[in-house]
Amino acid sequence: MSDPLRPDPLRIAIAGLGTVGGGVIKILEENRELIAKRAGRPVEIVAVSSRDQSKDRGIDLSSYDWVADASDLAGDERIDVIVEMVGGSEGIAKELVEKALSNSKAVVTANKALVAHHGAALAALAEKHDAPLMYEAAVAGGIPIIKSVREGFAANDIRAIYGILNGTCNYILTTMQAEDRDFDDVLKDAQDKGFAEADPSFDIDGIDTAHKLCILTALGFGVQPDFDNIEIEGIRRISIDDIFYAEELGYRIKLLGAAQYAENRIVQSVSPCLVPIDSPMAAVDSAFNAVLVEGDFVGKGLAVGSGAGERPTASAVVADIIDLARGLKLPVFGVPSQFLKQAEWACTSDISGRFYIHLTVLDQPGVLADVSMILRDHKISMESVLQRRHNPDHPVSIVMTSHMTTQKAIHQAVEKIKALSVIVEKPVVMRIEEFS
Amino acid sequence: MSDPLRPDPLRIAIAGLGTVGGGVIKILEENRELIAKRAGRPVEIVAVSSRDQSKDRGIDLSSYDWVADASDLAGDERIDVIVEMVGGSEGIAKELVEKALSNSKAVVTANKALVAHHGAALAALAEKHDAPLMYEAAVAGGIPIIKSVREGFAANDIRAIYGILNGTCNYILTTMQAEDRDFDDVLKDAQDKGFAEADPSFDIDGIDTAHKLCILTALGFGVQPDFDNIEIEGIRRISIDDIFYAEELGYRIKLLGAAQYAENRIVQSVSPCLVPIDSPMAAVDSAFNAVLVEGDFVGKGLAVGSGAGERPTASAVVADIIDLARGLKLPVFGVPSQFLKQAEWACTSDISGRFYIHLTVLDQPGVLADVSMILRDHKISMESVLQRRHNPDHPVSIVMTSHMTTQKAIHQAVEKIKALSVIVEKPVVMRIEEFS
Repeated sequence: MSDPLRPDPLRIAIAGLGTVGGGVIKILEENRELIAKRAGRPVEIVAVSSRDQSKDRGIDLSSYDWVADASDLAGDERIDVIVEMVGGSEGIAKELVEKALSNSKAVVTANKALVAHHGAALAALAEKHDAPLMYEAAVAGGIPIIKSVREGFAANDIRAIYGILNGTCNYILTTMQAEDRDFDDVLKDAQDKGFAEADPSFDIDGIDTAHKLCILTALGFGVQPDFDNIEIEGIRRISIDDIFYAEELGYRIKLLGAAQYAENRIVQSVSPCLVPIDSPMAAVDSAFNAVLVEGDFVGKGLAVGSGAGERPTASAVVADIIDLARGLKLPVFGVPSQFLKQAEWACTSDISGRFYIHLTVLDQPGVLADVSMILRDHKISMESVLQRRHNPDHPVSIVMTSHMTTQKAIHQAVEKIKALSVIVEKPVVMRIEEFS
Repeated sequence: MSDPLRPDPLRIAIAGLGTVGGGVIKILEENRELIAKRAGRPVEIVAVSSRDQSKDRGIDLSSYDWVADASDLAGDERIDVIVEMVGGSEGIAKELVEKALSNSKAVVTANKALVAHHGAALAALAEKHDAPLMYEAAVAGGIPIIKSVREGFAANDIRAIYGILNGTCNYILTTMQAEDRDFDDVLKDAQDKGFAEADPSFDIDGIDTAHKLCILTALGFGVQPDFDNIEIEGIRRISIDDIFYAEELGYRIKLLGAAQYAENRIVQSVSPCLVPIDSPMAAVDSAFNAVLVEGDFVGKGLAVGSGAGERPTASAVVADIIDLARGLKLPVFGVPSQFLKQAEWACTSDISGRFYIHLTVLDQPGVLADVSMILRDHKISMESVLQRRHNPDHPVSIVMTSHMTTQKAIHQAVEKIKALSVIVEKPVVMRIEEFS
């Protein structure tokens, strides 16, 4: 029988040899034969580029051409696909990707910041030069969510996307709960173990989640990626008390990226939310990511997998490479870029839902009456109220969950409540996300 | 700006206008504009065919050409894609698909029985005539799992696939647990509500799950689909007692289709298994499906979504149609068919794991000693033992979970235990599946 594989290899260059770049080389070497069968042709690494050629990466790079200046790869005629693993939304990464697309070279990237900040322009550039730009690894490495939204759910009008998109945050929240430990304590431990960066702000303040959400929103809703229209709140303020109050009320706290409709417009938010403890989303622990997509025909679909790490991310990068080898060429955000609408965004204050409120108050007579009156004045009715005192000399926690209302009403009421003299800490307010 | 859509529509014919066929027409009509943008061109229904033209399906079919004999569609030059919604592994469906592929026409089908029983031959035929055969809707309609395995995880050596693949079974098991009701009672109710067929055997005896597993195994492991090498056990024997004993031990009972390695060979099984109550798989309730895939680089990925129903299945069918419109053309099982290995299968008795054993015995002195000795003789050690008596005049339940052993040892021991005079019912044995 004749050889069913094409003899011409797909020739790639890898720029950036950090964790993920190294992982890409490993998977291409370890699963070489399997990948060739699935790709229909061999995948050949022609050149690599990184800042430091002398660094020991634990992989043999001697058979690949070393190119000092990554941007030289963009014009290299030996190369079909540029694998951009440099990172960052500006500088070398942006220059390389733009130059490669301009030269009609396919690009595979794991660079969420780049796609989130410059997605619309890159989509137009890719289209102009008929060059695919692939970024499965940019969002939830272990979950083929870009492919699922772009292709698997392509027949649907997407109504909502929710994601647990940052493994560091989910690890911290899960560990706080499992080990009854404070945020600062667990963060420090995560840093010591290498699960969190020395400067953890990108992760724990929600920026990384927002980058990924921005990409998913563009793809799902057919809009231009718009990072500046995401309301972002991280997890620094989540206390172990909130985690346990939530548990007592039947919820887990997760940092959610959410794109959903409010008042017929889309709203993008990153914020800690309470999710029902018996929902599959609540069971997503530790460094795992999860994405829930709701479409008008498919209903709700959830995918869970490793969020990051060398091997899952490399798996996503090489899935894109195999797609390119197989000849896939799709618009960057699933539709021709001129169809990408500039969305008119709603605000989180427009979101209707139920809310969790945690007040820390001085234990004086009439506090609950004062709070209740303010809530009533804002037409907010409560579903449950917990009151706890750890120690008579300490302030009291009043924890409440509301019935359906708007985030606007909750914030207005909480502003009034904050002005009460008995309030001793900034109130904690979180949306209860029931994915309905 | 010029119109970025191709003017030539993708012209399809739909054979079979049952629930799913009707749903395909609805989604193509309701989301026409969206689908055209994503497909890069219009999708046009040219012809339809069904046994009964006079039946009121609640959709206007007047603008489509009605073809009396579905197999005529296979040679119709107006048509690019045959959408086969007839069903069944033989007869009209098989004839139509074979004829269409032989005429180099693309085929989209939801027909799991057809692909499970004839997948290898159809893959060869499709390849010979350079015609794609797509079947996303055949497995877990609401989950793009065919695409995920074929493309998203394509860089991985797949190590295991586990699925909750039949909504009827999962509905019955979930309802038994939630409402403390017997199998027969819940099944009858499901039949009355239209959730289960009048002849439910296909679902509750595991055949439907096995069809879907067979397809996933072929795709994931790169082997010829082999329905005859699946060990199949359904859920008829699951009692409400077992559900509650499992719960007490920290597990839920799910009907799992599983393809995994045992003794370096693949084993395919369909059987009720215990899954840890805090695993996302345990949270998959009611008519939802779930698939867990384990790859050597990606690790474990889980996807959850609607299993069946008009709308999710139609979403999957049209995802395939959009892929075809976009020009995707992949081998049926992800690799050229000559690479599909004929697997040497292992047996479930080779599976190592932990097991649940439920014995119903006469309450006589020394029973536990007798049972324990038999287990010891087979080198099986128990992790936990529960003993319950509902009523002194009734037999006693002894419920045990084992430490790691093989299914073979368990079955040999249980055969010996069955021979004890005190055993009054056939022992219940289930694998504890911890997905590790």
